[in-house]
Amino acid sequence: MITKYRESNAGKFGQKIADATVGRLSRYYRTLKQMESLGISTVSSEELAKKNNVTSAQVRKDFSFFGAFGRRGLGYNVRDLKHNIAKILGLDQEWHLALVGVGNIGRALLNFRQFQDQNFYFTLLLDSDPRKIGSRFNTLEVKNLDNLAEEIKKAHVDIAVLAVPAEAAQKVAEQLVDAGIKCILNFAPISLHVPSDVTVRNENMVMEIEHLSFDLTQRMSRA
Amino acid sequence: MITKYRESNAGKFGQKIADATVGRLSRYYRTLKQMESLGISTVSSEELAKKNNVTSAQVRKDFSFFGAFGRRGLGYNVRDLKHNIAKILGLDQEWHLALVGVGNIGRALLNFRQFQDQNFYFTLLLDSDPRKIGSRFNTLEVKNLDNLAEEIKKAHVDIAVLAVPAEAAQKVAEQLVDAGIKCILNFAPISLHVPSDVTVRNENMVMEIEHLSFDLTQRMSRA
Repeated sequence: MITKYRESNAGKFGQKIADATVGRLSRYYRTLKQMESLGISTVSSEELAKKNNVTSAQVRKDFSFFGAFGRRGLGYNVRDLKHNIAKILGLDQEWHLALVGVGNIGRALLNFRQFQDQNFYFTLLLDSDPRKIGSRFNTLEVKNLDNLAEEIKKAHVDIAVLAVPAEAAQKVAEQLVDAGIKCILNFAPISLHVPSDVTVRNENMVMEIEHLSFDLTQRMSRA
Repeated sequence: MITKYRESNAGKFGQKIADATVGRLSRYYRTLKQMESLGISTVSSEELAKKNNVTSAQVRKDFSFFGAFGRRGLGYNVRDLKHNIAKILGLDQEWHLALVGVGNIGRALLNFRQFQDQNFYFTLLLDSDPRKIGSRFNTLEVKNLDNLAEEIKKAHVDIAVLAVPAEAAQKVAEQLVDAGIKCILNFAPISLHVPSDVTVRNENMVMEIEHLSFDLTQRMSRA
């Protein structure tokens, strides 16, 4: 079944399917984790669907896409299903993160327990500010951004977390790409231009909240 | 033109269009802000498109949707366009935020300058932990979650930022809805069930990074 996925992942349309599917798998995974902690051993597609605001047909389709995990009428084994989804999402292995930009949001991310809980570990901190270089956060020393390529290699970085100011982000992204980084989680509030073989996920809390202020403004103009 | 938007916003399909459009407006707004700070006074739809990885037809369509801002051949006035988009997004007024859950991520958000820069101000902190209630962050005192409805009213809260643990999130969301809150920015890693007139935006950094570990896992299996 993985082969089937790979084929559809090749095209642009396939990539889009994958994105939404991956997002749902992440949500199912969380539901299953919670169920496991409550001692629940089996779950139906209907229950998983209800807890995640999707249809049970969607749940079954998502799972069949990667190979069937359950038996009709018996539901899914919570632990097995959780284990299988973890494997698909790459959560059965450790990933090394570089934090690029040790500012406000960067420092918050360092203390964000949920990353470690999910096997994502910061192994490198980079900043260009001389007052920050050499200082320590948790057990990590902040390294000089000027030595990006060398430090990325030394720390065996898999994913770069980009938390530099907007005006510096594109240049630093290019340096990361040159250093061989294929995956970037971008917190800078700009659209990064990267080669097509590099994956960028954008996190922008201000832009999220702007959806809400837009929504409230619309409500007020209707009232 | 606003009327046109309102009509399409009423249906489910219209809502979807709005979501993507609003997201793009947020991005154009950032581009324009940066241009203004660089002293640039006019911009073409082509330039705005290029900087945001969309087509210029998309840019023009997004703007015409809310009324035309520019003149053909002359481009857009950067300051006027920025001002108009700010108005649409509700950024020309102050919004009051309640932080519900003063943990790791919550405290990081309190120190996140970009919220204030965009006129979003925390006016209320709520937590259920007796060790946190009564303590101060910046100038705000943490109030008891038990008095949620009353405190929400006193602080004139527009948007609730939900940063409580997953297992508490649904219950607290219901309390927020009962207290009259219509907009929630949810950081808890679960799908909230709320009435259809309540808008929820989800922020989940771990789920974002799981897209990247999935991507890396796929790359490895292809290699």
